[in-house]
Amino acid sequence: MLLPQLNDPKQLKSLSIEQLNSLAEEIRRFLIEKLSATGGHLASNLGVVELTLALHYCYNSPQDKFIFDVGHQAYVHKILTGRKDRFDSLRKQDGLCGFVKRSESEHDVWEAGHSSTSLSAAMGMAMARDFKGEDNKVVAVIGDGALTGGMAFEALNHIGHERRKLMVILNDNEMSIAPNVGAMHNYLSRIRSDRHYLRAKDEVEGLLKKIPAIGGRLAKTAERMKDRLKYMMVPGVLFEELGFTYLGPVDGHDLETMIDTFHQADNVAGPVLVHVLTTKGKGYKPAEADSYKWHGITPYKIESGQVLKAVGNPMYTEVFGQTLIELGRQDERLIAVTPAMPGGSGLFPFAEEFPGRMIDVGIAEQHAATLCAALAMEGMKPVFAVYSTFMQRAYDQIVHDICRHNANVMFAIDRAGFVGADGETHQGVYDIAFMRHIPNIVLMMPRDENELRHMMKTALEYNDGPIAYRYPRVNGTGAALDPELRSLPIGSWERLRPGDDIAVIACGPMVQVAEEAADQLKREGIQAGIVNARFLKPLDGSMLQSLARAGTKLLVLEEASQAGSLGSAVLEYYAGHGLHSVSVELMGVPDIFVEHGSIKEQRQLTGLTVESVCGRIKSMRAARSYPYGKTTTSS
Amino acid sequence: MLLPQLNDPKQLKSLSIEQLNSLAEEIRRFLIEKLSATGGHLASNLGVVELTLALHYCYNSPQDKFIFDVGHQAYVHKILTGRKDRFDSLRKQDGLCGFVKRSESEHDVWEAGHSSTSLSAAMGMAMARDFKGEDNKVVAVIGDGALTGGMAFEALNHIGHERRKLMVILNDNEMSIAPNVGAMHNYLSRIRSDRHYLRAKDEVEGLLKKIPAIGGRLAKTAERMKDRLKYMMVPGVLFEELGFTYLGPVDGHDLETMIDTFHQADNVAGPVLVHVLTTKGKGYKPAEADSYKWHGITPYKIESGQVLKAVGNPMYTEVFGQTLIELGRQDERLIAVTPAMPGGSGLFPFAEEFPGRMIDVGIAEQHAATLCAALAMEGMKPVFAVYSTFMQRAYDQIVHDICRHNANVMFAIDRAGFVGADGETHQGVYDIAFMRHIPNIVLMMPRDENELRHMMKTALEYNDGPIAYRYPRVNGTGAALDPELRSLPIGSWERLRPGDDIAVIACGPMVQVAEEAADQLKREGIQAGIVNARFLKPLDGSMLQSLARAGTKLLVLEEASQAGSLGSAVLEYYAGHGLHSVSVELMGVPDIFVEHGSIKEQRQLTGLTVESVCGRIKSMRAARSYPYGKTTTSS
Repeated sequence: MLLPQLNDPKQLKSLSIEQLNSLAEEIRRFLIEKLSATGGHLASNLGVVELTLALHYCYNSPQDKFIFDVGHQAYVHKILTGRKDRFDSLRKQDGLCGFVKRSESEHDVWEAGHSSTSLSAAMGMAMARDFKGEDNKVVAVIGDGALTGGMAFEALNHIGHERRKLMVILNDNEMSIAPNVGAMHNYLSRIRSDRHYLRAKDEVEGLLKKIPAIGGRLAKTAERMKDRLKYMMVPGVLFEELGFTYLGPVDGHDLETMIDTFHQADNVAGPVLVHVLTTKGKGYKPAEADSYKWHGITPYKIESGQVLKAVGNPMYTEVFGQTLIELGRQDERLIAVTPAMPGGSGLFPFAEEFPGRMIDVGIAEQHAATLCAALAMEGMKPVFAVYSTFMQRAYDQIVHDICRHNANVMFAIDRAGFVGADGETHQGVYDIAFMRHIPNIVLMMPRDENELRHMMKTALEYNDGPIAYRYPRVNGTGAALDPELRSLPIGSWERLRPGDDIAVIACGPMVQVAEEAADQLKREGIQAGIVNARFLKPLDGSMLQSLARAGTKLLVLEEASQAGSLGSAVLEYYAGHGLHSVSVELMGVPDIFVEHGSIKEQRQLTGLTVESVCGRIKSMRAARSYPYGKTTTSS
Repeated sequence: MLLPQLNDPKQLKSLSIEQLNSLAEEIRRFLIEKLSATGGHLASNLGVVELTLALHYCYNSPQDKFIFDVGHQAYVHKILTGRKDRFDSLRKQDGLCGFVKRSESEHDVWEAGHSSTSLSAAMGMAMARDFKGEDNKVVAVIGDGALTGGMAFEALNHIGHERRKLMVILNDNEMSIAPNVGAMHNYLSRIRSDRHYLRAKDEVEGLLKKIPAIGGRLAKTAERMKDRLKYMMVPGVLFEELGFTYLGPVDGHDLETMIDTFHQADNVAGPVLVHVLTTKGKGYKPAEADSYKWHGITPYKIESGQVLKAVGNPMYTEVFGQTLIELGRQDERLIAVTPAMPGGSGLFPFAEEFPGRMIDVGIAEQHAATLCAALAMEGMKPVFAVYSTFMQRAYDQIVHDICRHNANVMFAIDRAGFVGADGETHQGVYDIAFMRHIPNIVLMMPRDENELRHMMKTALEYNDGPIAYRYPRVNGTGAALDPELRSLPIGSWERLRPGDDIAVIACGPMVQVAEEAADQLKREGIQAGIVNARFLKPLDGSMLQSLARAGTKLLVLEEASQAGSLGSAVLEYYAGHGLHSVSVELMGVPDIFVEHGSIKEQRQLTGLTVESVCGRIKSMRAARSYPYGKTTTSS
């Protein structure tokens, strides 16, 4: 047993290849066992055990910088850098983060969560190194899926041009999260399938010598051909054309070859790309067999590979997926576009029924958004199915291509609000704030899964421009689903409970929080009204006017950035209509990045709980406002 | 003279090549003459005269869809589609738009302004065509600069995979706006320089026959070599590897060859990329000699090429560029990063003094932002110099890589506010709204060029995370420049004029508008206070408190989206501090996309003028607020 004694990656350097291979097996067993209890990104980490060992064996972290793209495949790196004893707390509040995290270790030099940032980070670190006259190595580890994200190409274009010393490891497992798509994937597949012909450089050289000298008109062409031939016959020409030295492909589970290749890479002057072939889920049969299912996994039984699922109401995502099929049957112009998240977005059942109408564009949110604009402008009804956090990548395209064109694009924004264990890189708390100011768009959020279905119908029947519905990563409320779908009047809110004195304006799952708070307050004799602000844009002006007329104090409650979201919209409305004496308070996500934990914990941390709402309503009732803003509390 | 009779692109089809060439010369003369009075994108349009003629000659717009990337090179297209008589109004209010504009013509099917969207648009239109069972052509025209934008690669990856019929014309003039940079550029250059060897397919075939049959161990390699050789010897292998059929390079000023090549492209089943070589400024010597200067040009004298410049105070951009040199001398960690706008951002003087410290990454805002994060995390002091509108592309990277890492990145946000003639695709009115809700960032805007200088110093000395200063595309106020730069206290506002009854909180050039309004009101006996809200985040809480205590009515005035910007921040502040009776009104950019015109006209259109401010202040003074929001106006 080597693992128990391992506390510093430097210890690896004295191990033999044989010992490293044993260690790899120990790490695999460790991961399979620990994650069976906590859940987490199993398949990708099983795939990079040898790769991570080889990196720490060949280089000196943290002087040499390892940058893991996305960062969910850094568990092995965490094990090797003194954090193995914390794996029971993985992805839990105050526990080990599921991604690279600088506050955990000096060996974590770059955090991610979103894909395709590693090459830009590596370039920045290489440039800084050169500016400072230092000579450390910089190594980016990027998957073949992440390579399709546009910013990775922007970085390749810059790196290949500047030709600084830097190493890119292409961790090719033929997957993003879903099976990878795209021309780059096809290209890499050709290299993979060609690999029996490879390491044939010597052969090619030999062959070239056998070509007789050719004279006359063709001499120049022949000479040129010979020059280029050697390099053309090896794979990776695409990367070579972009200024990289390409090495590989190498077997990512063969430590010795990988170590040799890294040493070879060290002798290359400029940027080098090492193409490493790995198997997701390697060493654990259930994960190898279905690496898609085992990408991010809940707790499971080790022997059977049986995944333990919490029982509960259907997730919003599932209701979305099922309802999309109903709508797809009604309108054949309806098509779904996903940036590499067909499963996470609940689109597989739709794709099964309408194979040509689910378009997975790969990790490419920008392209997805603009593609939707063009599809809509040509009369289709595209649904851009995207997680709130990843939609951030398409902000400019939403402004410039969708909203400015006033294109009939529907947005299905999943994971809106807190996301739990994925933590701060994945929180869906900004989309209201970054979309609300864009002209032409309609924004909705349902209070339950039944309302989501009506919103989907509303969106499909709306033909005046872009329209979005956002929904959380939680189980539905268990609401009965109306068989008949209907359109909601655009901009209409719903008064769920009367309350002239005070009312909560809430959206999404916060409506339920408001209802529970109101129930609790009722027991104390306090009557709090509740408004379901199902449209975040446009607002329900007549309801806001009537609340103002009634002198109702308002509390806006939302699981979204307090700056710029629904609360701001309500304030702007009253300021814009000269209704200065309406008393509005805000409860939203404060101005911090909220770390991993359960959604419940994240709500507690940010005060978005029944208890906090009750407390705030009581203090609002007690407060008396004096002219000129002097506020005091009586009783 | 053919041009005067030309009103419909169908008329081109009956012309001979000779006549088309004459027409090309007429169009050139037309452009040179018209733009000498209006200004506009001369060089790029002179470069695509023959290309645009060839497109309209070969295809049938609007059934066939022409998608012009960026859209500033569509003047010839406008001339050919019945709009030549409107060129005197180019880029003026209610006049011809400088970009493709659907409301102008059925021949304009896709609008742009930002780069690299055309391939996604083309793919969407091709998919919609196939869904609908139609058979029109879809043609995207994209420059070599725009090809480096990440989303163009995302689209290539998708198009090359799906293999639908569509045509990409790579308009290669070796420029984005500045001379192009990057590995893709180097690659295209190699193709250009190789072109004397090209169209040598026949020669290659002949040569291959001369290679003797080789047996034994090398036989397989030899066979493989022969198979691939033909295609390897022709250029464009990078595009071929991505699933395109590559044709070219062809001379973009040779109509006959181009037309032949387009016909050839029509016979290709899947996506085809035609590589067309053009010369920016073609046919007008001054523009050919310096196509960078002549990319977007103000009015000029035709004979001499002398550009007529308006006399005025230095632009903010110039002051930024000069001050950056001063700071660069003080701190050698300071480096500037630009996404292909070294000139527009005023960085050339800095680059001249510090050649290695100005990094042009090409059209790659996402990469630029993340690169800055990494540079900062390794101890450098990067300035991300970017236009407000283009920064939209980097929203996710600003959240995820810069602010979440709390990296010491400085943002120099140019073109903040209205931009004038470039119009709705380029307005810089959203950056406050899309950045203000991101934790950790500091946002500033100076009221004059002198304050800009102090803000730059403030940013350089600030070491607690990201900090931004935004400034408008206008001449400075002529303020005297303090020789000594100093740091401003973070979050401190400046009270420029007292006014207990009413005060304007303004930022940037709106401070001057407020001052003129206050002057005017003073003549009518009304004393309006003015606050320079030079920090947009964090706000000056103590000043907001003191204004509230004094019972001052507040008007927040900003040339930014009224939703989500400074006005909202002020409202949120008071709501968050229980100061519900402060009377705040907002004047900002309403919820519309503001079209081209002069900045003055854009301010008039949106009510951001001295007159409007005076009017609003008078009505605010006159209004009395009753409880429960009933507002009435006395006197």
